[in-house]
Amino acid sequence: MKLYDCQMAPNPRRVRVFLAEKGVDIPKTEVSIIEGENLKPEYLAVNPRGLLPTLELDDGNRIDETIAICRYIEETQPEPNLMGRDALEKAQIESWQRHMEFDGLNPTGEMFRNSFDPFKNRGLPGLENVQAIPELAARGKAGVERFYERLEQRLSQSTYIAGERYTVADITALCVVDFASFAKMGIPEANTNTKRWHADVSSRPSAKA
Amino acid sequence: MKLYDCQMAPNPRRVRVFLAEKGVDIPKTEVSIIEGENLKPEYLAVNPRGLLPTLELDDGNRIDETIAICRYIEETQPEPNLMGRDALEKAQIESWQRHMEFDGLNPTGEMFRNSFDPFKNRGLPGLENVQAIPELAARGKAGVERFYERLEQRLSQSTYIAGERYTVADITALCVVDFASFAKMGIPEANTNTKRWHADVSSRPSAKA
Repeated sequence: MKLYDCQMAPNPRRVRVFLAEKGVDIPKTEVSIIEGENLKPEYLAVNPRGLLPTLELDDGNRIDETIAICRYIEETQPEPNLMGRDALEKAQIESWQRHMEFDGLNPTGEMFRNSFDPFKNRGLPGLENVQAIPELAARGKAGVERFYERLEQRLSQSTYIAGERYTVADITALCVVDFASFAKMGIPEANTNTKRWHADVSSRPSAKA
Repeated sequence: MKLYDCQMAPNPRRVRVFLAEKGVDIPKTEVSIIEGENLKPEYLAVNPRGLLPTLELDDGNRIDETIAICRYIEETQPEPNLMGRDALEKAQIESWQRHMEFDGLNPTGEMFRNSFDPFKNRGLPGLENVQAIPELAARGKAGVERFYERLEQRLSQSTYIAGERYTVADITALCVVDFASFAKMGIPEANTNTKRWHADVSSRPSAKA
């Protein structure tokens, strides 16, 4: 297997952390999103949507979409379990994972894409000539604030995002928080439960991936 | 079990079609998004994000997020299989399902939310006081056009979205196409492969759900 990767982007990191938790070490090919390498013919031949990451299997099959890649790894390398063991737990983890995307990843991306100068003509991932919309930077920022409120509330009731153990939902949340922090929207000072959780998940060796 | 539903919205319909394919018939409680019932305390007590659908189990547990609900049904009622049998097929179907959301559902929602007068202060689902952004209506429309191009290309190579059999990816795509058509963006006249597929999936009894 081989991963088409981008060090600075949150979605490839989700897969890198997931692989590290599974103890799976595979070669990685760096594709720079900032420099637009994902929009060039060479990478579009790998992934016609120009999105990262993409997993290439030894037989040449390719899987894109972060969570589809995680699913493949979970199915082929079941331990440690990160996506649930029975029907209810699988559904609950999937629901929380989606909440972390919907509450957190979407507004962070909206804020970043529409305020970062190199992306002024790349307002949507994988595309060129989509103008940034300044009002979306503000809407995204308000969304990130709302994400932090909801996250703090959840982590005041639960050790990890989806319950009492570490799962793929924590991986998404960690990558969102670190990406938002890079975009100058770190965890609010008063959010002690979120800080406790963030220190915990960041201390796992996988967080360096 | 019981489903908190909304007849006119695409996400609840995805679950209704999925349940119908599985032959699972459960009571449904209608919550009108247009009338803002999803934002009132009664429904926020069921789903604090104000999103639909939500599945309530007989033991009182609730599962939200469309695909998490589908996962629960797939795990408890495995046949007919709609989400894949082995690791590779599961990942491929999940990837195509996500493409249908990313390529189709997102821009259709963006177009609709930002141009439909009753949603002028509800530019994001589940929230109040988020102003519609007119440029997003145009960006969404361009995205729906791109979705139809990609869909036609895919269906010129494949009988169904994820391969040679009907899966959850077809359910998402059907609900997107019908929702976009309701918003006056029907399948372009020249897209014969998409029309062949749409007639096929629409003729299944589940499409009436």
